[in-house]
Amino acid sequence: MADPDAQVIARLRDLLGERGVREQPDDYLPDIVLKPESTEQVSAVLELCNAAGQALVPLGGKTGLASGHFQTNGEIGLSLERMNAIEEIDSDNRTMTVQSGCILQVAAEAAAERELLLPMDWGARGSATVGGGVSTNAGGNMVIRYGMARDSVLGLEVVLADGTVVTSLNKMLKNNTGYDLKQWFIGAEGTLGVVTRVVLRLRPLPTSQNTALLAVQDFPRVAELLRFLDARSGGSLSAFEVMWPDFYEYITREGYVHPRPLPHGYGHYVLVETQGSEPVHDAERFEAVLGEAMEQGLVEDAVLSRSQAERNELWEIRDDVLDFFNLGPFIPFDVSVTIERMEAFIADIRAQMAQYDGAICVVFGHLGDNNLHLNLGNRDAQKFDYEAMQTLLYETVEKYAGSISAEHGIGLSKREQLPRSRSAEELQLMMRLKRMLDPHNILNPNKIFSAEQIAAA
Amino acid sequence: MADPDAQVIARLRDLLGERGVREQPDDYLPDIVLKPESTEQVSAVLELCNAAGQALVPLGGKTGLASGHFQTNGEIGLSLERMNAIEEIDSDNRTMTVQSGCILQVAAEAAAERELLLPMDWGARGSATVGGGVSTNAGGNMVIRYGMARDSVLGLEVVLADGTVVTSLNKMLKNNTGYDLKQWFIGAEGTLGVVTRVVLRLRPLPTSQNTALLAVQDFPRVAELLRFLDARSGGSLSAFEVMWPDFYEYITREGYVHPRPLPHGYGHYVLVETQGSEPVHDAERFEAVLGEAMEQGLVEDAVLSRSQAERNELWEIRDDVLDFFNLGPFIPFDVSVTIERMEAFIADIRAQMAQYDGAICVVFGHLGDNNLHLNLGNRDAQKFDYEAMQTLLYETVEKYAGSISAEHGIGLSKREQLPRSRSAEELQLMMRLKRMLDPHNILNPNKIFSAEQIAAA
Repeated sequence: MADPDAQVIARLRDLLGERGVREQPDDYLPDIVLKPESTEQVSAVLELCNAAGQALVPLGGKTGLASGHFQTNGEIGLSLERMNAIEEIDSDNRTMTVQSGCILQVAAEAAAERELLLPMDWGARGSATVGGGVSTNAGGNMVIRYGMARDSVLGLEVVLADGTVVTSLNKMLKNNTGYDLKQWFIGAEGTLGVVTRVVLRLRPLPTSQNTALLAVQDFPRVAELLRFLDARSGGSLSAFEVMWPDFYEYITREGYVHPRPLPHGYGHYVLVETQGSEPVHDAERFEAVLGEAMEQGLVEDAVLSRSQAERNELWEIRDDVLDFFNLGPFIPFDVSVTIERMEAFIADIRAQMAQYDGAICVVFGHLGDNNLHLNLGNRDAQKFDYEAMQTLLYETVEKYAGSISAEHGIGLSKREQLPRSRSAEELQLMMRLKRMLDPHNILNPNKIFSAEQIAAA
Repeated sequence: MADPDAQVIARLRDLLGERGVREQPDDYLPDIVLKPESTEQVSAVLELCNAAGQALVPLGGKTGLASGHFQTNGEIGLSLERMNAIEEIDSDNRTMTVQSGCILQVAAEAAAERELLLPMDWGARGSATVGGGVSTNAGGNMVIRYGMARDSVLGLEVVLADGTVVTSLNKMLKNNTGYDLKQWFIGAEGTLGVVTRVVLRLRPLPTSQNTALLAVQDFPRVAELLRFLDARSGGSLSAFEVMWPDFYEYITREGYVHPRPLPHGYGHYVLVETQGSEPVHDAERFEAVLGEAMEQGLVEDAVLSRSQAERNELWEIRDDVLDFFNLGPFIPFDVSVTIERMEAFIADIRAQMAQYDGAICVVFGHLGDNNLHLNLGNRDAQKFDYEAMQTLLYETVEKYAGSISAEHGIGLSKREQLPRSRSAEELQLMMRLKRMLDPHNILNPNKIFSAEQIAAA
């Protein structure tokens, strides 16, 4: 473990002042964290660190699920927490310009006050930052309708490893002026530059929302239901969350906190939601389309929420993923598989897990966007084998030509698995860009690629 | 003008056979055009040309509006016309995989047969290719709802300058496995690699379509109407095309081919369209929302199309842009400006054009995506001053912080103007990628950047 050079730290302290440096020894996170208050300070920090060969880990809300914010070799943290201003909400062009450290929920609420929707929303909304979401191309609950974080970014400002500030704060939906630079940095996990400001595209705030929990007999019907609802809802389908019985039946077990809106025993449970602009008609339509789905045998049983409280109850079932840790230790996986391969993929995983006594194997997912989450572990902590679970899962993902990361990114924890989803040519090309933009490898080193891989590329 | 090396041509002829090489002297297009029939042949061609320093112009449907397909210094053409297969339409995942040379309309019709929509559509649909549309990040008629070409690309295959084939034929909506390489090549106008295959995202085919032509008094009401309709149409607004009177009144002039659905004399004419999945309700809703807009004073007069024939009549007015050449010579410009600056921008252009006797100044645009088209010229060909029109327009775009290219790209014709919309840091970063990926500058040289700029970067 390399320690940061004391002289470098002293110079950074001079640059940022006492308020700009925090020391906080930690097993995983950087012990020393810089807190610049402006793009100019970020630029000065990077210029200094680049010249000194001092590596940095850019930090957002530290809610990432791929250890992208961990330190690996004595890096200094670079937190954007003091750069959290909402600089502008532009109702004419339906955009907002925010500094990277702005908390996602704060941004979304400010947009909602202007009757605009920021369609970036996921569980960690209360502590995740806009910059972190953009840098990891986060997904979340509305991807099926509005896309990933990438699709909400119109412009950004990024500071390169050498301190160069590249300001590309475009607000226009159409702008074909040369290469679309911002795309390089979205989802790059802080390895190519530090995003300091973002222009986000906003949408009209929906005025109606209809939610239901559906019971579906088998997977082919789940897939058919998705196509059916999408075709019948005229672009308003905003969620299609599938829970397998191992998920639903555990979370709605006797004596635990949740109600049980639908009985146990069905093959799949699907939480669907539409968002529209006609409260009365949208509710009628939602019911009529679900009725048709039942007539066609796609849906066995259904519960529609009649109030915000009932809606919350349904979503709390889907969102209560942390409760599974009461079962025993497990790894929460995040993968993608094409729909026609999904059933065979899951059956294959289950067959392999069956060899373990006390196996935990819980499946749920967004599905509408190919994303499956799998919790694989063991009720007996002694028998929980981290390496074995990883190998089992990722080998199977590779076998079904899936993606080892749907929305969480690669970070540190999936780095070794990346060749399962990307070819040698793709990896080589990525590393060439990394070397070009960060020749001294000071930006979040060892994430996505190891320092050794980069050096050898 | 450099001539291609005879020996290189001979070797290319050996590689591709007689059917694979076409000679066709032309003032603007390359005289010799290669027609590979496979990715392997594209790779072999590039490897050979890269080693020999022979530059190439990748060719799609040659319908681009920025001269990106012109030759500049004896380049050979590389046409993808024989690689035009639709390899797969995947209804489960709603994707299609096509070779680059596939004609846009052919791809769209094949998707429609499966009740799926390929949301890439623009005037040149009958000759433009998918690869050309992806390489220029083309826009078109449905951008407001479905985005640019970029937003329909899930995966692609690209051949790099040195012949390396990078196959990234992802089909999944979510796939966060390292840098999103495909974004580098979309909209790069063939300067970074040759796109050979594309996986496109398809949508459910709408089953209802409602179209109207509206008269609106002034620009603030046009902007307000856009927000109003977008908020009230629950995501179904698919077109919002604005014609200023100089456009509408000329195209619907006495004695010409079009009917005149609304009288002359209004401030603006807006063609709006929604696409949905409920034919009866959508029509009622469309009428009700337009009625509300009239009550609120946003709309003065309206004509709704009652049949496909009536819809076609409305669109033919909007699409009849070539007729303006009967007025006299003009340049068709394609720019973006943010909405709150648009009125002042247009007034500024008109005031400057007023100094020219016989000035042509016609304005129309998609508006919902910030895109304005302006035809600036002169009824008297003798007085038409190409340079003066360019300078006038682009200086004004720069003054209003607009984009010099909304959807047509940079190519050759806007290259000198690029610094008006992009900073020195942005341009520098673009050129670094170009140099990294194409060190001998064999891929569409002199497009976006001149060879001299690249060499000096």
